[in-house]
Amino acid sequence: MLKKMGEQAIKAKETVELLSTEQKNEALNLAARMLIRDTDRILAANEQDMEAGRKKGMSQGLLDRLKLTKDRILDMSEGIRQVAKLPDPVGEILEEWERPNGLFIQKKRVPLGVIGIIYEARPNVTADAFALCFKTGNVVMLKGGSDAIHSNTAITESLRTALSEAGVNPDAIQLIRDTDRETTARFMKLNAYLDVLIPRGGAGLIQSVVNNSTIPVIETGTGNCHIYVDKDADLEMALEIIINAKTQRIGVCNACESLVVHEAVAKEVYPLLQKAMEKKQVELRGDETFCALFPQCRAADEEDYAEEYLDYILSVKTVKSLEEAISHINRYHTMHSDCIVTKSAERAEYFLNRVDSACVYWNASTRFTDGFEFGFGAEIGISTQKLHARGPMGLKELTSYKYLIKGTGQIR
Amino acid sequence: MLKKMGEQAIKAKETVELLSTEQKNEALNLAARMLIRDTDRILAANEQDMEAGRKKGMSQGLLDRLKLTKDRILDMSEGIRQVAKLPDPVGEILEEWERPNGLFIQKKRVPLGVIGIIYEARPNVTADAFALCFKTGNVVMLKGGSDAIHSNTAITESLRTALSEAGVNPDAIQLIRDTDRETTARFMKLNAYLDVLIPRGGAGLIQSVVNNSTIPVIETGTGNCHIYVDKDADLEMALEIIINAKTQRIGVCNACESLVVHEAVAKEVYPLLQKAMEKKQVELRGDETFCALFPQCRAADEEDYAEEYLDYILSVKTVKSLEEAISHINRYHTMHSDCIVTKSAERAEYFLNRVDSACVYWNASTRFTDGFEFGFGAEIGISTQKLHARGPMGLKELTSYKYLIKGTGQIR
Repeated sequence: MLKKMGEQAIKAKETVELLSTEQKNEALNLAARMLIRDTDRILAANEQDMEAGRKKGMSQGLLDRLKLTKDRILDMSEGIRQVAKLPDPVGEILEEWERPNGLFIQKKRVPLGVIGIIYEARPNVTADAFALCFKTGNVVMLKGGSDAIHSNTAITESLRTALSEAGVNPDAIQLIRDTDRETTARFMKLNAYLDVLIPRGGAGLIQSVVNNSTIPVIETGTGNCHIYVDKDADLEMALEIIINAKTQRIGVCNACESLVVHEAVAKEVYPLLQKAMEKKQVELRGDETFCALFPQCRAADEEDYAEEYLDYILSVKTVKSLEEAISHINRYHTMHSDCIVTKSAERAEYFLNRVDSACVYWNASTRFTDGFEFGFGAEIGISTQKLHARGPMGLKELTSYKYLIKGTGQIR
Repeated sequence: MLKKMGEQAIKAKETVELLSTEQKNEALNLAARMLIRDTDRILAANEQDMEAGRKKGMSQGLLDRLKLTKDRILDMSEGIRQVAKLPDPVGEILEEWERPNGLFIQKKRVPLGVIGIIYEARPNVTADAFALCFKTGNVVMLKGGSDAIHSNTAITESLRTALSEAGVNPDAIQLIRDTDRETTARFMKLNAYLDVLIPRGGAGLIQSVVNNSTIPVIETGTGNCHIYVDKDADLEMALEIIINAKTQRIGVCNACESLVVHEAVAKEVYPLLQKAMEKKQVELRGDETFCALFPQCRAADEEDYAEEYLDYILSVKTVKSLEEAISHINRYHTMHSDCIVTKSAERAEYFLNRVDSACVYWNASTRFTDGFEFGFGAEIGISTQKLHARGPMGLKELTSYKYLIKGTGQIR
């Protein structure tokens, strides 16, 4: 079944990659309308998933992620419309040059081809991933969580109907309906058909894809983000940034999980921090210096420093120097986003260059690591690897390039 | 042992990525001199490998690849010197912009970090891969073929001595001396230390790395390259290109392995082709149309069309249309390099856009798919995947980027 789907994807790719921007936008706008038109059908399907979820005792949080409402479908639809409005990066000539032998070489931006997405029980990803991939001339094969299978199937049907009506091969989006482990395992080895695999979800899902896929993977989303308060920091600014990065939204990958503080300001910072975090009900887990001030706090261990809590917990580490702060961060971070708060441009520059993360901040919240906040207009995820794309991935990051070489009979 | 090496690599990375272009060039030039100085020692080590190779009955071809001479060491040394002369891509600001909230975002080119290279019994790769990786601020961990272990060890020693003398951490290059399978398997899963793994060698090696590595891989080098002779082709030009692409060098990935001919010119092309290939001792394996003209020829089957011969063999397929040619190529090629010979700009344009290869040629030999021929000044390999880099990879392709974000206390 997977093989047949793969062949269909390849077939669809041949025409989808050649669609004009206008054709793609038209199909996207039709898809946006189709979701609205099919709202009742989608909601009914979603209710099946919700009922099954309640029966099996899914947590309130997971149920909330799974749930669709009229408004949420409207949001999905509006999301697709927004993607239609974005500039199309495909077809751009990135470079061109002539060789001494007269060969004329063009480097042209092209779609990646067939993109696989593996995600959890979030039905909105179905519409979202489709829109971004389709806008960039890619074909998608989606493998969503089994708990959302009815919702995903309903949404996919609407999108496929819209494509057909727009005269586009509906296999530009295919949903894998078998949600068992074996199918997933085989999907991750479908190198003959897929050009890239992008996991979207928690650390467990991502690790499983990284470990098992033979298809090139873009690793996304795990964020153990640090804020380092330097000895020259504006402490008021530091505190505002910490509060924002830690508490504005808890469960996201660009939230702050670890605080690093220069010993010269530790005694001043910690009481302020403790008060602010208590107010926000954030538990602090500190090192010796911190715990000496607040003996009731739990001591932070190695695991705390490495942990992406996604919770009301923050680890705290005191350092003797900027150098030690950088070492600590480079050791424990996930190469996602880290920040220095300092008034010294020189020390900031050093930190920015030495900390090996996708996004390194000087005096700003790590929460800005986001395709929309960067001005990309969209986001398929945040890459924490160095190959292909790093940090927020927008439309351009869903493309590759090819070389077109024009000659007049040149031989070597 | 691998873990310790990984930790040393990370430690070296911290300083190597910050070296100035001048520092890197100085170390490279010293390394080039060191290879010359150590010629006798390297040749003695190589003789150990050669003797072991002869004893175990290695083929003449493999022994030739393994063999080092004074001249070959001079070539390696000169290769390093050439890399030192190339512009350093690291540090370039690729883009910068300000957001409405005042955040200033810079996208800066940085090294990939720690690069793993797995290769076969070609000792020259040791010096070559080191030079390219080091020039781009990367640290390398090399795993060469067991048959070249003495040569690789000797070369690595010289390079490490040069680095030390230049004041650079010698762990910028480390050679894994255990060449057993288990070590290789563990090396391919060293995600905690390696940012990317690049296999250099035959299809078997590459497939094994793709299948077993959990580290992001750049797949290189398998080339089932096609030349399509269109109905509007200049047949003389076509023949010259075919002869060049097939026979100028047999064992390389950009050599032509498959010929596709439009039926309108097949009867004219085939006798000329047969004569030319006979002269070069190339065996032709054709489809029905071809074999009807030359019944003594072996018929081409599915496997022939998919095969990267790297030998004096060429498969031949007759097609009814440009469309069929494109389908055939997209089905059997390895996305490396393919060519159309035609006088029609329109048909060429169509072919260039539809054939999904890293390099698509119009009226030129596929042999030009090469970092030097493209003008990159160097080449670490030719990527046949779409993620990160496609086609010839020079220095830029050994880099990633990071975002530096400067704020004044911005929060969300």
